[in-house]
Amino acid sequence: MRPSGRAPDEMRAIAIETGFTRHAEGSCLISFGDTRVLCTASVEERLPPWMRGKGEGWVTAEYSMLPRATHTRGGREAAKGKQSGRTQEIQRLIGRSLRSVTDLKLLGERQITLDCDVIQADGGTRTAAISGAWVALRLAIGGLMASGAIKQDPLTRKVAAVSCGICDELPVLDLDYAEDANADADANFVLIEGGHIAEVQATAEGATYDEEALLRLLRLARTGCAQIFAAQDRAVASR
Amino acid sequence: MRPSGRAPDEMRAIAIETGFTRHAEGSCLISFGDTRVLCTASVEERLPPWMRGKGEGWVTAEYSMLPRATHTRGGREAAKGKQSGRTQEIQRLIGRSLRSVTDLKLLGERQITLDCDVIQADGGTRTAAISGAWVALRLAIGGLMASGAIKQDPLTRKVAAVSCGICDELPVLDLDYAEDANADADANFVLIEGGHIAEVQATAEGATYDEEALLRLLRLARTGCAQIFAAQDRAVASR
Amino acid sequence: MRPSGRAPDEMRAIAIETGFTRHAEGSCLISFGDTRVLCTASVEERLPPWMRGKGEGWVTAEYSMLPRATHTRGGREAAKGKQSGRTQEIQRLIGRSLRSVTDLKLLGERQITLDCDVIQADGGTRTAAISGAWVALRLAIGGLMASGAIKQDPLTRKVAAVSCGICDELPVLDLDYAEDANADADANFVLIEGGHIAEVQATAEGATYDEEALLRLLRLARTGCAQIFAAQDRAVASR
Amino acid sequence: MRPSGRAPDEMRAIAIETGFTRHAEGSCLISFGDTRVLCTASVEERLPPWMRGKGEGWVTAEYSMLPRATHTRGGREAAKGKQSGRTQEIQRLIGRSLRSVTDLKLLGERQITLDCDVIQADGGTRTAAISGAWVALRLAIGGLMASGAIKQDPLTRKVAAVSCGICDELPVLDLDYAEDANADADANFVLIEGGHIAEVQATAEGATYDEEALLRLLRLARTGCAQIFAAQDRAVASR
Amino acid sequence: MRPSGRAPDEMRAIAIETGFTRHAEGSCLISFGDTRVLCTASVEERLPPWMRGKGEGWVTAEYSMLPRATHTRGGREAAKGKQSGRTQEIQRLIGRSLRSVTDLKLLGERQITLDCDVIQADGGTRTAAISGAWVALRLAIGGLMASGAIKQDPLTRKVAAVSCGICDELPVLDLDYAEDANADADANFVLIEGGHIAEVQATAEGATYDEEALLRLLRLARTGCAQIFAAQDRAVASR
Amino acid sequence: MRPSGRAPDEMRAIAIETGFTRHAEGSCLISFGDTRVLCTASVEERLPPWMRGKGEGWVTAEYSMLPRATHTRGGREAAKGKQSGRTQEIQRLIGRSLRSVTDLKLLGERQITLDCDVIQADGGTRTAAISGAWVALRLAIGGLMASGAIKQDPLTRKVAAVSCGICDELPVLDLDYAEDANADADANFVLIEGGHIAEVQATAEGATYDEEALLRLLRLARTGCAQIFAAQDRAVASR
Repeated sequence: MRPSGRAPDEMRAIAIETGFTRHAEGSCLISFGDTRVLCTASVEERLPPWMRGKGEGWVTAEYSMLPRATHTRGGREAAKGKQSGRTQEIQRLIGRSLRSVTDLKLLGERQITLDCDVIQADGGTRTAAISGAWVALRLAIGGLMASGAIKQDPLTRKVAAVSCGICDELPVLDLDYAEDANADADANFVLIEGGHIAEVQATAEGATYDEEALLRLLRLARTGCAQIFAAQDRAVASR
Repeated sequence: MRPSGRAPDEMRAIAIETGFTRHAEGSCLISFGDTRVLCTASVEERLPPWMRGKGEGWVTAEYSMLPRATHTRGGREAAKGKQSGRTQEIQRLIGRSLRSVTDLKLLGERQITLDCDVIQADGGTRTAAISGAWVALRLAIGGLMASGAIKQDPLTRKVAAVSCGICDELPVLDLDYAEDANADADANFVLIEGGHIAEVQATAEGATYDEEALLRLLRLARTGCAQIFAAQDRAVASR
Repeated sequence: MRPSGRAPDEMRAIAIETGFTRHAEGSCLISFGDTRVLCTASVEERLPPWMRGKGEGWVTAEYSMLPRATHTRGGREAAKGKQSGRTQEIQRLIGRSLRSVTDLKLLGERQITLDCDVIQADGGTRTAAISGAWVALRLAIGGLMASGAIKQDPLTRKVAAVSCGICDELPVLDLDYAEDANADADANFVLIEGGHIAEVQATAEGATYDEEALLRLLRLARTGCAQIFAAQDRAVASR
Repeated sequence: MRPSGRAPDEMRAIAIETGFTRHAEGSCLISFGDTRVLCTASVEERLPPWMRGKGEGWVTAEYSMLPRATHTRGGREAAKGKQSGRTQEIQRLIGRSLRSVTDLKLLGERQITLDCDVIQADGGTRTAAISGAWVALRLAIGGLMASGAIKQDPLTRKVAAVSCGICDELPVLDLDYAEDANADADANFVLIEGGHIAEVQATAEGATYDEEALLRLLRLARTGCAQIFAAQDRAVASR
Repeated sequence: MRPSGRAPDEMRAIAIETGFTRHAEGSCLISFGDTRVLCTASVEERLPPWMRGKGEGWVTAEYSMLPRATHTRGGREAAKGKQSGRTQEIQRLIGRSLRSVTDLKLLGERQITLDCDVIQADGGTRTAAISGAWVALRLAIGGLMASGAIKQDPLTRKVAAVSCGICDELPVLDLDYAEDANADADANFVLIEGGHIAEVQATAEGATYDEEALLRLLRLARTGCAQIFAAQDRAVASR
Repeated sequence: MRPSGRAPDEMRAIAIETGFTRHAEGSCLISFGDTRVLCTASVEERLPPWMRGKGEGWVTAEYSMLPRATHTRGGREAAKGKQSGRTQEIQRLIGRSLRSVTDLKLLGERQITLDCDVIQADGGTRTAAISGAWVALRLAIGGLMASGAIKQDPLTRKVAAVSCGICDELPVLDLDYAEDANADADANFVLIEGGHIAEVQATAEGATYDEEALLRLLRLARTGCAQIFAAQDRAVASR
């Protein structure tokens, strides 16, 4: 029995509220249960120096947790003067995930930055961030196409992510904080609509798992991502 | 005529949604029109070293703007590795304002940190932050009293803040971004329920103002804060 | 009775020694009693990137306290690796104050940096810094006009600053350290010759004050600044 | 045909020279072909504050690339003042990998730090680092057991890592730099002797892969790790 | 002929004004011609953690150049967020020099920090700093002995420093900025009253020198330091 | 009797293994007994901004100690976020030493960076670094001449360095760690083939020395450097 009473292959409620902030070219507040992440996409016509003159654009991401998104207050990274290893690892993952579905040549010489700020955390913040960032990116690119800045759509596939894990020997989908803190092993899957894998990060600290367990988690992830893809579609359609 | 069509002494719509996040001991999302600030109060039973053993507590604040709260994306302070002078100035102001209405001896040897994170900015973020932080603090202290941790209420007065300015020679209340960017002079007033002044920061860059103008702005601020005090009361009562 | 034996509206002795260092385009050592601040104005023909090409110049300030300017040694900010919030707040104030009397278009595309280094502190260091920085700026601009680099004087008014406060319910002028540490409320006024206000920063931590008290402090500040303006005139005339 | 002329399932030559430095409690220089990493294990009887009093120890890792380990010189992180996201990601991975085979309770209240410094890089530095760090850890723990500081061996299994990838549609084992730079997808596998998986990090930027490809890479990794386990055994036996 | 018209073995005018600031336990403003350095000695009864419990004290130094001490303004190290290599090298030298004449056991478990802040620079700032720091230290230790905190004098010898160099093949004493910038070789000598050497730092960038030249510079340094020792005596006697 | 059993004027065994890493334009692993330093020379055709357009090149150095090069593990500077004063002092010394034998005009508009990373420390790391850096530089410049990039050799003399000291009143050559930690005085000499001195850094903390002792140490240094010059010749010849 899971702490939340969910079935092993049951996602938490997914909600995506688009246009949550008005200045960003694309934005949404995505919720996986009590985990809530504000995702904004900012278009800048200026590229970082090392990307200029290649005839293509760049998609990057930044991630942060508000200090009291968590059960106990964490120090503010801006006050500490540096981003933690965990933060950097996550924002690099978000950036790679979104670039895996973006044709940078079609994007043209501009940069889109995806800011993922966790308003409230209950496990799975990085997977919610990736899933929400896609919506923000979709809306921002939609705007660029509507204005004629981009002719051909550089974003033709969806990407979503979900965490799975083994808790008390049971493979389960979409871990919340109570499960995440006690899992024997957990894995984040970034999947692309149509069955492909963009990224797997499967970690076992203390415990380990075998090939079969990895595959069972991957199948759970497919189930979960199918629901996220549907929610992404509804969210974009509602704009 | 103001850009927003408001009368000179007209506030923007004030909204305070309490309990916006579930982990903090007190929280609210406060809106002054399109300016929205998430305020959380975190209670910690541990004091910073320099405050220990004095038989009293501490109230402090941190402020941040999400990178895309603004019209164009600003760099993330955690990524830059330091907080700007503006950020530090504002969070020091929020802390002083809240301490001006808190009896630190009655609070006891604990610290309450007020995190004010600007979700969307349209002028007046620091004044909204102070006004919302009071609500978060009120809720957190209410919890401490309900649990019996505090016997006597250390927070018996309300504090609120509003910005006023002189735009095209006209003194106006509660500047939005369009006015703030073009004001001849602007002033932030932190007022305490009952008529007292906690803080005035009146700045004129380029222009200047005289004693009479300062007093006219102070009177506008009284009008505005009266409405904020009422909104604070309604917000707390609704919990 | 004030700790120093001064009357409530009595300034400390003001002394301004111009040309205290020989390399700066303008410099002075200003004293308000035992508070001594070295102010230098450095002219650079190069503007910071964000100011270039606008056909105007920039005036900025940096402030620092020598580690043993105070009763007990404070850590050196260069060794700590960052400037405190207090330092940043003060140097921003000095910069705004001086810009409030400088016509940046007439200054032309150059930058003047005002370095205010506190040699000895006894309260009121930021107000002495502003008052002395004006003298350094006046001398530096005088040099630019003498050399023909500037045709029309961009600095036609004087600016000065003084702190006032309420100590044991008595409004007093020009607080020294003993008063500053125990004041119920204190305020820094930056005034412009001729009666205008450039900036007011009135703070009450713990205590508060009403409109009348604010006005009484403002009137004390006018008295004090009149004496500072006279001292500035004498200092400049003596070069 | 691979750039190096190797067969798809052929590892580069593995060499492990133990005792490369004399001060560390355990050390080796590990080579995967031209990739060479110096791994040292340092035992400290002092734990970081957050680990104290739990009756168990800690194993952690730090990773660095010498500036000219690579084809073109990279900036020194100590001079830049911060570790890159990549460095932090890798050293976190090394630490987790080694902890997955260490019984922290049996280790007792002490910390072992694994320093992995890349002397020369030709692809696969993080996997060589993990594989070499195990040898250094094994030697250091051997010393603790020999001296009687530890009674029961906290390290009863071996851990090793290898990278695999898909190059020109061909799954290949142990990518060198030429392959790594052009791979469609690459994955790092951290495997434990006996068939279990400690960690998988499979990344596809631009391309993606399906379940079958992931499994084929995992099988290649098993082949490679079997050889690394044998080399680890020989290295430890030779001391 | 030297730019200043001085003879090869002629020092600039030495002036030492004691008690330049009132809070420090010892202070002086020392001038070697146009080079002026404010030296303060601060006594703290608290030692840095790594010095505690050894039954002895510590003497350390910090050095800084005010931004406009020089011909053109240099960036403020506190604003840059770090001390330059040059600054660190100099303050380490000052600390070693003063410790070479202090009996740390007799000093007892307290720390004296020597802050050397360059008000105006014209070559030789580090040697003036060492020479002035001795006076500040002498005054501070005198105070500790007068108050009975120290029984036996821990400072029984004088230390002074001077720079010498080879300019246009001529060995000269006490280089000013014009000479320093063009010297073929320069050397800083820290000498102890009575003929001993505490430190020599002889550097030739581009040019080099032989044993004989080194000895000639050392003899010039003895001449110079004899005059500095006399000035130190007069300064201390005048208190 | 020295701890190592060496005669007072006896160097430790010198070994120089060239080509220790393959990517650098020049590299060697130099050993003075148990002290081992990896020195690499990296040629970049790009100069730092402040050196451009002068028709000459630049030679600079960076120095670092691997965390476990020493008896007990030292913190990694990249993790601490800054280089120590000691590190900066040493790398500045290495750079100056190598520039003293390089004709920067003949080098042309390019930069050579000498990275000196201490693999194992047993005293004298900076002198081994200078001596090894010359070999790396020689090899790198040899490559530039072989390729025709440089016509005339900018490096016509050798430079080497050795530490000497006074231990138990006996002047000794090439201090190892056991001696260095207990020396009354120690000095680093950077000498140029043919008898000239590039740099002397003679330091006495606690003790002091006189002119005669300084000269005796200098003569020991000449003996030592003669042997290092011979080893440098053999190393370069063996390529």
